Amino acid sequence: MEYSFNFGASVSRVVLEREMPSIETILKDAKAETGLSCWPFLVCDANTEPLAARMAGSGEVLRCVLPPGEKNKGWASVETILRQAREAGLARDGLFIALGGGVISDMTAFAASVYMRGARLALVSTTLLGMVDAALGGKTGFDLFDIKNLAGTFFPASLVYMPLESLETLPRGEWKSGLAELIKTAVLDKKDGKGEFLSLLSALREGFLTYEKPGDFLAARYETILDCISRSVLIKGRIVEADPRETGTERALLNLGHTFAHALESAAGLGRISHGEAVAWGMARAGELGLALGITPPEREKTIRALLGSYGYEISAPHPLIRDREFFLRALEGDKKKKGGRLSFIVPAREGAEMVYMDTSAGPGEKFRGSIFDRLLLQHIIDGEFLEKQQ
Amino acid sequence: MEYSFNFGASVSRVVLEREMPSIETILKDAKAETGLSCWPFLVCDANTEPLAARMAGSGEVLRCVLPPGEKNKGWASVETILRQAREAGLARDGLFIALGGGVISDMTAFAASVYMRGARLALVSTTLLGMVDAALGGKTGFDLFDIKNLAGTFFPASLVYMPLESLETLPRGEWKSGLAELIKTAVLDKKDGKGEFLSLLSALREGFLTYEKPGDFLAARYETILDCISRSVLIKGRIVEADPRETGTERALLNLGHTFAHALESAAGLGRISHGEAVAWGMARAGELGLALGITPPEREKTIRALLGSYGYEISAPHPLIRDREFFLRALEGDKKKKGGRLSFIVPAREGAEMVYMDTSAGPGEKFRGSIFDRLLLQHIIDGEFLEKQQ
Repeated sequence: MEYSFNFGASVSRVVLEREMPSIETILKDAKAETGLSCWPFLVCDANTEPLAARMAGSGEVLRCVLPPGEKNKGWASVETILRQAREAGLARDGLFIALGGGVISDMTAFAASVYMRGARLALVSTTLLGMVDAALGGKTGFDLFDIKNLAGTFFPASLVYMPLESLETLPRGEWKSGLAELIKTAVLDKKDGKGEFLSLLSALREGFLTYEKPGDFLAARYETILDCISRSVLIKGRIVEADPRETGTERALLNLGHTFAHALESAAGLGRISHGEAVAWGMARAGELGLALGITPPEREKTIRALLGSYGYEISAPHPLIRDREFFLRALEGDKKKKGGRLSFIVPAREGAEMVYMDTSAGPGEKFRGSIFDRLLLQHIIDGEFLEKQQ
Repeated sequence: MEYSFNFGASVSRVVLEREMPSIETILKDAKAETGLSCWPFLVCDANTEPLAARMAGSGEVLRCVLPPGEKNKGWASVETILRQAREAGLARDGLFIALGGGVISDMTAFAASVYMRGARLALVSTTLLGMVDAALGGKTGFDLFDIKNLAGTFFPASLVYMPLESLETLPRGEWKSGLAELIKTAVLDKKDGKGEFLSLLSALREGFLTYEKPGDFLAARYETILDCISRSVLIKGRIVEADPRETGTERALLNLGHTFAHALESAAGLGRISHGEAVAWGMARAGELGLALGITPPEREKTIRALLGSYGYEISAPHPLIRDREFFLRALEGDKKKKGGRLSFIVPAREGAEMVYMDTSAGPGEKFRGSIFDRLLLQHIIDGEFLEKQQ
């Protein structure tokens, strides 16, 4: 399957197939678009390096191998990419190819976006989370001062490959992380009046919980998984097309659960909890916030919570990894989505989701001047007290 | 005087006046555009800190003071800006204000462009070089691996202030550096059939060479200097409007002299020679290259060379700071403007300037496959042998 999206001035072509693309194919696809000669420069980590060799085939490809994991998603890794690209003699029309999940693609895309003020970029996404979220839409970044993606750019890749066969060896934790973003995207689907997408995900659950060997789940449920990823690509792609740089309110919908999730990831220590598990927990909180504000219908909140619970995500509050609520609140208040001093949250609505603002603000050096109601409500939700009162 | 330019999706408003803008004025101007509340976060260096205090007036402004100079134009400084912005609680709608010359504005603009994927930005340019070049057009960046601006973005400031009074204390070397970019811009002016702009610059020369106390030059030639900066803003602004991200060939014209200049700056060691002096030397080389290729009319080459020489720029080849020609050639071949393995140069034409490609290319790990003629011509020009043969 192929899709094409217009993100502002850039066109992103998405190739969703079973097989890994060869370097030759990527070069052909890239040249078809611009007619320029270029050298491919591939960035991977220790986990995806074997795939790099397969992609290269009998040919050669310049390769930068990074240490894996969120804890290595910092400037040191970005600098390594830039240095090796420079040493390889890459020019402005050189082609960066990211081979990996969200960490590798976010950093490689950032490096490509600043290398000589912008080189060429193709992403080969090898994780479910990458396919469903990180690889599409042009957000790049790396972690700084313990804040996720504090530094980043908008730089859509012209080519995005999602080879499902790369999921054959995906560890269970990675599946779980990606499935949370799939559930999030299904909740956002305004056109899904009958809840088809959520039902598909519900139907996948048993296969996910009971598979024995890596690869079994993908083999047994290939068509459903392909259908889910394809729906997700279309939903996310359309949202980003409507608001490529998140200057409006449309793209922000993709942050359902993320304001809580990012604060949880920071409070737990980056890399201590997977992004998807944090998003699942954040979605549960967002549902409660939506309930409290009268935006999320109780039935819908229940459906989402039940689906999340059935997959085994930790959705109770307070979260066991939050040892210091004040630290968590400060992380929440430092969120990137803050505007005019107010925090924005996305909460499930009757259809899709909606943005709400919560005013917990204080200026630098100023005293608290936000809404006591907003702050107390958030505290209750984080502490699990809201939940208790509901039951 | 005020100008407004459309650089792609962004509007840059340029305010060219005698007085420094107050923080209050900048905030008013910034709010008028977007209606958002924001906190100003001012970045300066030890040289411009006194101006920051004047701008703040009785109010307060968050301030980040960096060590001055090209040698500090690296990631460490960018990280300091980002860290202090973060500690100040700046959100995505916070306003970065750069107060200084090209180094401060390039780095602050880069930091603003990646902070939470893009915050707001105003530049207050306090050097002639900044006003004529760095502050306008959206190029941001910092030096990496001894390559000038190897990392950067396109991120036009919404507000650019050029307060001429800040030039009162500008050291002679800084004047000289800026005047070279003014000469470059005058050469690019296609509409200047009668050579008015170049004549203005020729008329400024005596005042520049003979002034005694800082401030005297500006006071004595205020109207002419204002006229030159204003012309330069218009010429550069129109060129960038036609090709904001240098994807075409229009914006590249601004690189007249710069391919040689950047290689000279790298070969000499970053910060050893001022940017303008390197550009002056590069323009002399570009004139010779244009002559050799039959693009630059001999009379025009002579006029430009004479003007550069009369200001006292080092324009002879080989340049005394190039100790190793091979290193210089490698720096030249690593230039950001390289495309499809070929180097691009801008050379003066009958009117304005033109781009030419020189093929000195070798792929990574490959043997030389470029044009022997091109390589020899460049070697001759760098060694000064071309010049000798002409005379």
